[in-house]
Amino acid sequence: MKKSNLPLDADRLWSGIMALADTTDPARPYTRRSFTALFLEGRALIAQRFAEAGLTTRIDAAGNLIGRIEGLKPELGVIAVGSHSDTVPSGGRFDGVAGVAAGIEIARSLRDSETRLDHTLEVIDFLAEEPSEYGLSCVGSRGIAGLLDGKMLDLVEPGGEKLRDALRRVGGDPDRLDQAKRGDIRAFLELHIEQGVILESQSLDIGVVSSIVGIRRIEIVFEGEADHAGTTPLGLRRDALVAAANAVVAIRRIAEELDGEGSGYFVATVGVLAIEPSASNIVPGLCRLIVDARTTNPALTARFVAALDRESEAAATAARVVRSAFTTLSDGPPVACDADLQSSLRAAASDLGLTQTDLPSGAGHDAAFMSRICRSAMVFVPCRAGKSHTPEEWADRDAVAAGAAVILRAVKALDHSLLEA
Amino acid sequence: MKKSNLPLDADRLWSGIMALADTTDPARPYTRRSFTALFLEGRALIAQRFAEAGLTTRIDAAGNLIGRIEGLKPELGVIAVGSHSDTVPSGGRFDGVAGVAAGIEIARSLRDSETRLDHTLEVIDFLAEEPSEYGLSCVGSRGIAGLLDGKMLDLVEPGGEKLRDALRRVGGDPDRLDQAKRGDIRAFLELHIEQGVILESQSLDIGVVSSIVGIRRIEIVFEGEADHAGTTPLGLRRDALVAAANAVVAIRRIAEELDGEGSGYFVATVGVLAIEPSASNIVPGLCRLIVDARTTNPALTARFVAALDRESEAAATAARVVRSAFTTLSDGPPVACDADLQSSLRAAASDLGLTQTDLPSGAGHDAAFMSRICRSAMVFVPCRAGKSHTPEEWADRDAVAAGAAVILRAVKALDHSLLEA
Repeated sequence: MKKSNLPLDADRLWSGIMALADTTDPARPYTRRSFTALFLEGRALIAQRFAEAGLTTRIDAAGNLIGRIEGLKPELGVIAVGSHSDTVPSGGRFDGVAGVAAGIEIARSLRDSETRLDHTLEVIDFLAEEPSEYGLSCVGSRGIAGLLDGKMLDLVEPGGEKLRDALRRVGGDPDRLDQAKRGDIRAFLELHIEQGVILESQSLDIGVVSSIVGIRRIEIVFEGEADHAGTTPLGLRRDALVAAANAVVAIRRIAEELDGEGSGYFVATVGVLAIEPSASNIVPGLCRLIVDARTTNPALTARFVAALDRESEAAATAARVVRSAFTTLSDGPPVACDADLQSSLRAAASDLGLTQTDLPSGAGHDAAFMSRICRSAMVFVPCRAGKSHTPEEWADRDAVAAGAAVILRAVKALDHSLLEA
Repeated sequence: MKKSNLPLDADRLWSGIMALADTTDPARPYTRRSFTALFLEGRALIAQRFAEAGLTTRIDAAGNLIGRIEGLKPELGVIAVGSHSDTVPSGGRFDGVAGVAAGIEIARSLRDSETRLDHTLEVIDFLAEEPSEYGLSCVGSRGIAGLLDGKMLDLVEPGGEKLRDALRRVGGDPDRLDQAKRGDIRAFLELHIEQGVILESQSLDIGVVSSIVGIRRIEIVFEGEADHAGTTPLGLRRDALVAAANAVVAIRRIAEELDGEGSGYFVATVGVLAIEPSASNIVPGLCRLIVDARTTNPALTARFVAALDRESEAAATAARVVRSAFTTLSDGPPVACDADLQSSLRAAASDLGLTQTDLPSGAGHDAAFMSRICRSAMVFVPCRAGKSHTPEEWADRDAVAAGAAVILRAVKALDHSLLEA
């Protein structure tokens, strides 16, 4: 199709994304970390756009920025769209932001065409979707799902601030989190860049997400002895890095075996590995690493964790060190997207003349937590070379507009069909 | 023997060591990094003790603090003793300092007994023996050996200061390094804690060092691609940490094979390994590690480097990353201690009724650089559990005094025997 015929303003949508991109730490674009002054600056911009689109704005107890336009039949409940405006360090311009900007454009487009929905429409900028300085991701959508607990609120970032206090600082209310939990949302739709290469490599416009991977994060700590690198014979060493290196090699091997079975998507990554004291002439006395394992099939994660437990313990024994921690940091199960919402999205893409496929999401998203309290689904749009979480991240103007148009059309359809559901 | 019968004042020697220990960064004892204000504070204390011992004090062009008492026959040249007063971060109280304090006590003891040597005696506090913020060790003894070159002076520490400027700041003169190079030193003797377990485990008083290991440091950098840890299938990854982990495993295996041959002492360590961007949900795009290989047999190092080159390249290829650096950071050859000086030290220990053994040094020392310009040898004294470069580092008062007494006795003997050499 000619994307210039889309029922929304692609340029207006694009300028919203670029305006947020400009709100970045200038030393390392594109960085707008949750809870920082820059993050609040970005949110002020979003709140302004909410107002221009005719949405009333509030911040809920879980720190989510929410724009709302009341439906003609508010008793029907809420159809929500959105994503997040925070970024990883040195991230991109689209991850999260594209979904928030699409939500704003959908509201504007409805107003421009003088379309009033029966359902109330909300556009949500979820708080801290990316792993925050507290080691926790999806803070806001956890809150809406009623899954943000006191233990999480007590997490402390390296600067010493508790999540509880940071939440208050950005306008949330950690003492009234029960008010953030929602029972009135009937459907949630999120637009996001694919962060993979399937759509681009097959020249497709739209990905309808079938499921979102479960993510298990495990911290492993090896404790040995920080000895002199010259005077300590190899046989007397307790080298924490040697244990960790063997664990990293084993993790890759186990992951390849599980993924190769064909019973589901499986990847595992060691993205953090730090040694102490970290001097060229001292045997590493301590090594801490974080393993990130993702799958669409929870049975694979269970087998992975069992193998990792066994092999990391064996690596510790062989290196004469102690595996002093083997801790689950987080454990989100895989989520299947709602079948009816997927059908609506497929129909919308088809009606708009867009090419499409179904595909799983290897990344976690707020939509996974939203699925705990309502029907939930996602639209992916292609991004260049699959790159994400890097300044090179790129999606074309028309690609983002096409994704937003699919959600707009699905929202209109759902406004009627949800009545019957 | 009863160590209280030693021909020097063990308490006075001990109090000198403890006074320097008190000159530490209070937040992380015992830290007195070269070129810092604390380092200069420690040196002011040493200069005061030099003066009390009747030594004239100067700082040479290479930044070494030197105390000197003219001999009766100054044309015979210099007998030098000493070590260094800088520490690693969170180091110990004895590494280096014990040798400087022993030098001061030897001068005091000679003065107390009204003994004038024919040779001039110098006590040297070498500048920056430990790896400095410039990545260079043994700055001062390199200078005395004429091995501190312009490339080294241009090294820059993380704060942006050139070694050239830091040297000037501590009283050296980078433009007149030729004046630091010495041709008049006839013998150099250094006392040091063993930093290993041989003396303690065999209940011996004294180690006469037979040779000092050569140290080769190599930096390896693996460059891959920082991809999303969820959306990048294993087969498409270019994970720099997977390559590095395989290299660490190979390094340990190669080192064990070479050391097991019995043709010399061999150890290799990866003490520094850092990954970027270091986030749990991002595949490591870059990994940098430093390999430290030490041996008494240079042929083993040559074979180690060849095997490391081959295996690290293979690890890169297997992980689909590029080994973008394989750089020799430093390469000091092994050094045999002077046979005549070793004999003098053995005789002195024996005369004093101390138990002893010959042993190699797995650590580098200023004595290795001094061997380039004069006869050079070392005395080791036992330290608890072999621990060094840690606040737990410990040597007994009488053990240090015994080592100092051996050097004092050897100095007196050499004052005569060197005439005939």
